[in-house]
Amino acid sequence: MARKHDGSPVTVLGLGLMGQALAGAFLRKGHATTVWNRTASKAERLVAQGAKLAGSVRDAAAASPLVVICVSDHEVVGGLLEQLDDVLDGKVVVNLSSGTSAQARDLAARAARRGGALLDGAIMAVPDEVGSKDVAVVYSGSRAAFDAYEPVLRDLAEATYLGEDHGLSSLYEVAVMPLMWGILNGFLHGAAMLGAVNVNASAFAPIAEQAIGSATRWLAGYARQIDEGVFPPVDVSIDLHRAEMQHVVAESEALGVNAELPKFIRAMADRAVAAGHGGESYPAMIELFRAPG
Amino acid sequence: MARKHDGSPVTVLGLGLMGQALAGAFLRKGHATTVWNRTASKAERLVAQGAKLAGSVRDAAAASPLVVICVSDHEVVGGLLEQLDDVLDGKVVVNLSSGTSAQARDLAARAARRGGALLDGAIMAVPDEVGSKDVAVVYSGSRAAFDAYEPVLRDLAEATYLGEDHGLSSLYEVAVMPLMWGILNGFLHGAAMLGAVNVNASAFAPIAEQAIGSATRWLAGYARQIDEGVFPPVDVSIDLHRAEMQHVVAESEALGVNAELPKFIRAMADRAVAAGHGGESYPAMIELFRAPG
Repeated sequence: MARKHDGSPVTVLGLGLMGQALAGAFLRKGHATTVWNRTASKAERLVAQGAKLAGSVRDAAAASPLVVICVSDHEVVGGLLEQLDDVLDGKVVVNLSSGTSAQARDLAARAARRGGALLDGAIMAVPDEVGSKDVAVVYSGSRAAFDAYEPVLRDLAEATYLGEDHGLSSLYEVAVMPLMWGILNGFLHGAAMLGAVNVNASAFAPIAEQAIGSATRWLAGYARQIDEGVFPPVDVSIDLHRAEMQHVVAESEALGVNAELPKFIRAMADRAVAAGHGGESYPAMIELFRAPG
Repeated sequence: MARKHDGSPVTVLGLGLMGQALAGAFLRKGHATTVWNRTASKAERLVAQGAKLAGSVRDAAAASPLVVICVSDHEVVGGLLEQLDDVLDGKVVVNLSSGTSAQARDLAARAARRGGALLDGAIMAVPDEVGSKDVAVVYSGSRAAFDAYEPVLRDLAEATYLGEDHGLSSLYEVAVMPLMWGILNGFLHGAAMLGAVNVNASAFAPIAEQAIGSATRWLAGYARQIDEGVFPPVDVSIDLHRAEMQHVVAESEALGVNAELPKFIRAMADRAVAAGHGGESYPAMIELFRAPG
């Protein structure tokens, strides 16, 4: 597959908030952009910006060698692919709709039967962030398709290729989700604690951001410990974390806020300590996350 | 209190990993640094770098107008203060030992009875990071003491003053902890999921870092929503989060890893949906974190 230039034509099927953001980013980068949506009115702003609204899914896909699909779920993607029987041959389909790894592999097989190559992608961002190099989309599936369209895909976000297994991008997407909820829930718990002494959440946010920065810098080293399977307590042992968890539970209760989150965190550390990991570094807890509870 | 210059003399009591890191940072910035530790041998490396080892707690504190205490807990800090009855007058004591907000207020009262001013600080970092502007120490207590010693304290880390209540820095410290465990647990869960398909943790780490960056950028806006008490779903509604949580639980179970963490996360969202917040943005969940569970 020849490497595509930045301005090559693209099609976007599905114009929810994310689909609109994707099409908008393509338009800003000078791509001839064809769009389609079940409810055509959602295309109005994009058409005003230069997008071409196709009258059917089939016409939309026929207009470009690259077809990006961003709809609500896997069933809808499958339904769209069925309407493209005779136009997918030689095309690259990039599915950015959420789904499971098994669904991604199924879509890849369906596209392949029609002569298309599928890349399954996961957007690690909210719609407003699309078009920024600060955010990432991860892709898996056809290496040749990724290599050919990498410059085009980079107009949407930082693009990372994960491997030939079409299920990988979906797995990475679900793998980062608990991290994101961990940040959101942790922030809400901290904001609730400080709110109990009349500190507002906006005062807490910059300190929270610095703490997140610190924790983030530990991950690469912790990842190496996990991959090597040895957990020397280079910074803080699980025993010390456990003592801090107790302290957060006590302070939460003293402030009269819900202590469920720190109690859940403490319960996992309790089990790690009981399993003999108290003197090791935090990532030794990976064992608990691997084993069915 | 006159503003102290960068090279003014300092004393560090307590030379665990963090105390050693603090004294080392002071030495690198050219402060005449006096140190003391119960076990004197822990001072050897610092003495080789130019620190003066005092023979007693009292001699150590007498040597400098600023006395930094970093020991294992509040009881130990109290015991040290008792030995300083006649040398604390006019001094600033910076307690960087962990403790509760009530303990910080108690220490401040004890120091005040001896004529000392206490700043209670919380280090949002591990020892290796001390001395970097990328990490933060938050301080609360005497505003005059903070203003006088701010240039000196900035030799340890970015320094933020929170307010006159000595308990604030301790509360901020415990408030950020669930965030940090949220990142660590989220990373371990994701690493366990990807490990089940033979992706190593080091491959996951850079993608995890990008996702953390995205979630971090949401916090300021979410904090404003919390402070204003209105939660328009500008990006993703709790209902959509809830659907993703279900998906992560299912994929975790399909991969044979422990699904406890995503199930806990989902259970909180279930309650938010049941309470009528499904159409709102994630920070509407603050209500659950505030209310005793």
